[in-house]
Amino acid sequence: MDLLIEIAKAIWFILPAYGANAFPPLMKGKIPIDRGKKLGKNRILGDGKTVEGTLGGLIFGFFVGLVQIFVQSKINLESYGFINITIPLILTLTTGALIGDMIGSFIKRRFGIPRGRPAPLLDQLDFVFGALLLSSIFYPIELEIVLFIIVVTPPIHLISNIFAYLFKLKNHPF
Amino acid sequence: MDLLIEIAKAIWFILPAYGANAFPPLMKGKIPIDRGKKLGKNRILGDGKTVEGTLGGLIFGFFVGLVQIFVQSKINLESYGFINITIPLILTLTTGALIGDMIGSFIKRRFGIPRGRPAPLLDQLDFVFGALLLSSIFYPIELEIVLFIIVVTPPIHLISNIFAYLFKLKNHPF
Repeated sequence: MDLLIEIAKAIWFILPAYGANAFPPLMKGKIPIDRGKKLGKNRILGDGKTVEGTLGGLIFGFFVGLVQIFVQSKINLESYGFINITIPLILTLTTGALIGDMIGSFIKRRFGIPRGRPAPLLDQLDFVFGALLLSSIFYPIELEIVLFIIVVTPPIHLISNIFAYLFKLKNHPF
Repeated sequence: MDLLIEIAKAIWFILPAYGANAFPPLMKGKIPIDRGKKLGKNRILGDGKTVEGTLGGLIFGFFVGLVQIFVQSKINLESYGFINITIPLILTLTTGALIGDMIGSFIKRRFGIPRGRPAPLLDQLDFVFGALLLSSIFYPIELEIVLFIIVVTPPIHLISNIFAYLFKLKNHPF
């Protein structure tokens, strides 16, 4: 059961990024960040990356982090080896997640993959890489946790998207 | 320059897998492994995974590993902290790379991505995950090397594919 605890620690750390990443599709925003501009023959980012979604993601990710801070005030998770969630950590994880997600869309457009078409692994990990990179500037994190996050995120992401699709919150099950 | 040495160590370890992965597209094999069979509405693996490519990849990856063993007999790389390449390691890295590549194609087909269409990250990392997983059963490898391999492989893969495309060895620059 040691493995389950390690996975729990990894998810606890990355949870604000999950929050920031999960929220934008639910917003169904209208204002594209790239203002419809193209780079070469494809859109810079596409209609999937909106101002509303990004702001909503930042706020929701921040809210998730605040809930974690509240939980920490009740249970001393740090004594079990969990990383202590702080405001700067929340800010870097959520901002990094949204930047990573945009870079993911940017890469998909450069490869000519239209919005809404799947890019397995990239779709599931772009926000994680962004969150890990930006937060690592301030919080050097254990390599083991990084690997756990990379391994557990794609299945979690896929399963939650299938649910979002079943509940008609997303147009695609990926 | 410490970083460059670490990257060199990571590449040295994964090199037989690179060899196994690079060769199949050059073979232009004809016999698909899935024999044209479908799973649901898409092919199981597609025409890109052939018997000839897989055998050629195994042989070429093994050859790369043998060259490494020859180099090791001349230069004591282990004293610099390089992992010692052995026959069982070569066999697990090459077999794992080819299995990983097939799983990558399998995933792409399940997501409805046709052969030849790009799947950024998955295209570049499927064989690496396969090689690392299979070889790790016999050779527990440092997490740091795993992360280095995951980070440096996509750009290396992309650059070599662009070259392969320019020299008309591949039909796509990805």
